[in-house]
Amino acid sequence: MTQAPALRGFPEAEYAARTQLAQSRMAEAGLDAILVMSEPEVQYFTGFQTLFWQSPTRPWFVLIPASGKPIALIPEIGASLMRRSWIDDIRTWSAPAPQDDGISLLTEALSPLRNLGVMKGHETHLRMPLGDWERLMAALPDLHIHDATHLVQGLRMVKSAAEIDKLARICAIGSATFAAVPDYAREGVPLDDVFRAFRREALAQGADGAPYVVGASAQGGYADVISPPDATPLAAGDILMLDSGMVLDGYYCDFDRNWAIGRADDTARRAYDVLWRATEAGLAAARPGNSCRDLFQAMSTVIAEMDDSGGDIGRLGHGLGLQLTEQPSHAAFDTTELQENMVLTLEPSLSYGDGLMMVHEENIVVTPQGGRLLSTRAPAELPVI
Amino acid sequence: MTQAPALRGFPEAEYAARTQLAQSRMAEAGLDAILVMSEPEVQYFTGFQTLFWQSPTRPWFVLIPASGKPIALIPEIGASLMRRSWIDDIRTWSAPAPQDDGISLLTEALSPLRNLGVMKGHETHLRMPLGDWERLMAALPDLHIHDATHLVQGLRMVKSAAEIDKLARICAIGSATFAAVPDYAREGVPLDDVFRAFRREALAQGADGAPYVVGASAQGGYADVISPPDATPLAAGDILMLDSGMVLDGYYCDFDRNWAIGRADDTARRAYDVLWRATEAGLAAARPGNSCRDLFQAMSTVIAEMDDSGGDIGRLGHGLGLQLTEQPSHAAFDTTELQENMVLTLEPSLSYGDGLMMVHEENIVVTPQGGRLLSTRAPAELPVI
Repeated sequence: MTQAPALRGFPEAEYAARTQLAQSRMAEAGLDAILVMSEPEVQYFTGFQTLFWQSPTRPWFVLIPASGKPIALIPEIGASLMRRSWIDDIRTWSAPAPQDDGISLLTEALSPLRNLGVMKGHETHLRMPLGDWERLMAALPDLHIHDATHLVQGLRMVKSAAEIDKLARICAIGSATFAAVPDYAREGVPLDDVFRAFRREALAQGADGAPYVVGASAQGGYADVISPPDATPLAAGDILMLDSGMVLDGYYCDFDRNWAIGRADDTARRAYDVLWRATEAGLAAARPGNSCRDLFQAMSTVIAEMDDSGGDIGRLGHGLGLQLTEQPSHAAFDTTELQENMVLTLEPSLSYGDGLMMVHEENIVVTPQGGRLLSTRAPAELPVI
Repeated sequence: MTQAPALRGFPEAEYAARTQLAQSRMAEAGLDAILVMSEPEVQYFTGFQTLFWQSPTRPWFVLIPASGKPIALIPEIGASLMRRSWIDDIRTWSAPAPQDDGISLLTEALSPLRNLGVMKGHETHLRMPLGDWERLMAALPDLHIHDATHLVQGLRMVKSAAEIDKLARICAIGSATFAAVPDYAREGVPLDDVFRAFRREALAQGADGAPYVVGASAQGGYADVISPPDATPLAAGDILMLDSGMVLDGYYCDFDRNWAIGRADDTARRAYDVLWRATEAGLAAARPGNSCRDLFQAMSTVIAEMDDSGGDIGRLGHGLGLQLTEQPSHAAFDTTELQENMVLTLEPSLSYGDGLMMVHEENIVVTPQGGRLLSTRAPAELPVI
């Protein structure tokens, strides 16, 4: 069944509220402005949404001033689309222009400022040439750069009702897409055909796309969880895992499912059961007052029944929204306190046998009662297809 | 008809040849090593291919030494996949680790070096936190950083026979996908359904995915070329444009097609004709000895019959390969000399009427006889469907 189409974007009030909350935290932090240049942040503050970010050629800049609407400093090719957003002040140049790809525009906009926030911490990249950044800094010797990573990530981590609605829709599409897998995944079908059928089904269910589809199928379990598929046919005794980020109007789901092909051995059944119960522990722990570390430990305690190595994937889930993975991290190092309306993945994994592993993943909203599922809960026992 | 599946990746000799050519140019430039950290460069030198790059959380580093194989310094989650590549020296850490996300590993690897190449120029980004880069530089005060942008882009611009084969396959898949558009795009069909049907067809034709699908449908022409679709139904008198980057084994096609829905007015027919002939001029000019500027001017001369503004898209085509858009640029500023076996897009565009525009795009290989088409040439007259 095709999901009813979602409205595109949000009303202006959504972006205004985000901007005003940013500005109140900027005031507390003594920042005159924040400069953002990556796709999720530009989309978060302006609503500007395009797949054109896949081209690395042109930089895009948005300045959040101390008050008033954000200011866009962007290539002319994006002006028409940006004019459909709530942004009024749109300054453009004809890009690409390797000698001056927005740097003089940016220098002029930043020169009245003294304290500028830029995201330069964990999970961020500099989405402009490093050489241009160095030139910009040399042109603005009196500008103090402050790390705005936590400020911006802190805003984005807690979702509005409208964002949760988008995330619920794409998770429902994802659940329907996973439910159809037994229709076409069976012994003898090449793994890359399974991937293509999965992506086609995601589109048929109403996703804008399924940009992230990874997984594996191998005897008794799999050795890694980030591989592209090859043409090896599914075989009896394989554990098939598909993990997917599908997208609707810029918002992602990110969860996986496991199936045994034809038959399952006891070890794989046990790994599945441990991970299913680890997820239950995560659901119970996903409430305000607990930290990401608490959530990590709740899942780790169950995982340790079968694997006490602590794993090497680095974390047992993360934030979810405009990015497939975003802050926070369910890891021992992350003491972020959980807040109502955070949208998270629970992603317990374990290693077993001779280099095998298994991963479970669900998508949830944090509520005072614990995690509310956005994905349809995986079955309690390893399904055999 | 489904394309026969391509072999995944390349034989080791392909990566060895790339590395050795890099090393000979590094020797000329006095570089001890080059550090790369972005998806296309890591894939180019190692063959490491994963959609996991969509997660911004973890940095990935590959060091090209003065001799011998590249060295991977990567998160443990990628070790299993990297071990399937031709790389032997794989150093890992358990990421994410915000306090030390590979920085101490990298410091140790770089400390014996004096002259390091890093890509910091046009069309590059710093795919690690800026704060971590600053920490790394502070830990290596004797290291001189040289801009390796042109060196690496210069290698990647000229394709091997094996790369051209991959690009020809995905262009054939793209051509078959575009050929099917009249089967489902007609008056009354919502534009976002057209996009979904297009993506599904790309997968059915054998693409690994169609990550980049943009376009528009509007009366007599369109106002921009980077928008996502909405649910507006196609209407008689619309010009429908679809532009797509589809991918096979990491290699992209990138071309578009235009159709008139029901009927076409004379201005749209004329714009189409001018752009078709501009592409012909580009095909003739795409041979060694000419520069990108020459190619730009050959197309511009024809475009000026209808639009002498020079446009504001910034260029009339670009390189194509592991990225949807890569070097060089067909623009007045780019004096890169064309070389045999460069794979390029020809992308003439023009503005007309009240804020309308039209874009044509084909994919070609540079040969001594001019551009050899990889995409099936668009019809000479605006097709009406």
